[in-house]
Amino acid sequence: MAIPHATPGQVIDICPLGSAISTSLTTTLIKTDRLEVIRLVLPAGKEIAPHKVTGEITVQCLEGRVAFTSLGKTRELQAGNLCYLSGGTEHAVKSLEDASVMLTILL
Amino acid sequence: MAIPHATPGQVIDICPLGSAISTSLTTTLIKTDRLEVIRLVLPAGKEIAPHKVTGEITVQCLEGRVAFTSLGKTRELQAGNLCYLSGGTEHAVKSLEDASVMLTILL
Repeated sequence: MAIPHATPGQVIDICPLGSAISTSLTTTLIKTDRLEVIRLVLPAGKEIAPHKVTGEITVQCLEGRVAFTSLGKTRELQAGNLCYLSGGTEHAVKSLEDASVMLTILL
Repeated sequence: MAIPHATPGQVIDICPLGSAISTSLTTTLIKTDRLEVIRLVLPAGKEIAPHKVTGEITVQCLEGRVAFTSLGKTRELQAGNLCYLSGGTEHAVKSLEDASVMLTILL
């Protein structure tokens, strides 16, 4: 059964998953007409091939480390790092160790 | 001099400020035509009176604890907690201890 998305005002847990990463799945935390928030679960070595979405995105690393490639550069993101991209910007992600990343997408 | 907003792809530090909260100011981290991301710095006891904004918001506690009131309920948010509100929903915030909170606003 799909996990229901959060309702307005509901408290959503985005604490690090720790060792539970290996048994956790990527989940959509929030989904509305204008906004989608996803927690990507990325075991070490997982790659998300270059792609783009229409709207602006923010990318926040919640735990672990990922290589985030966009605009001709690869930057390392770790817990406490945030970045954003304009809509239509191609980007790719590779986890350098077990990681989870929160993606906020403007639809 | 105002701190410039981040540019696309730039890595933004949202690690806890810790004891630097007392000397830190609220800052706008990202500002585009459609999106604004703000780090609110809230020393213990700070209150933000009930207000609303047009677009949807997400509220993520980065450190400390805050009481977040909306939709007739007061919920406590601490580090690792996220919630969202539909546009036009009145809300208020009071910090229960030194805290910082990241606010993402759809414009």
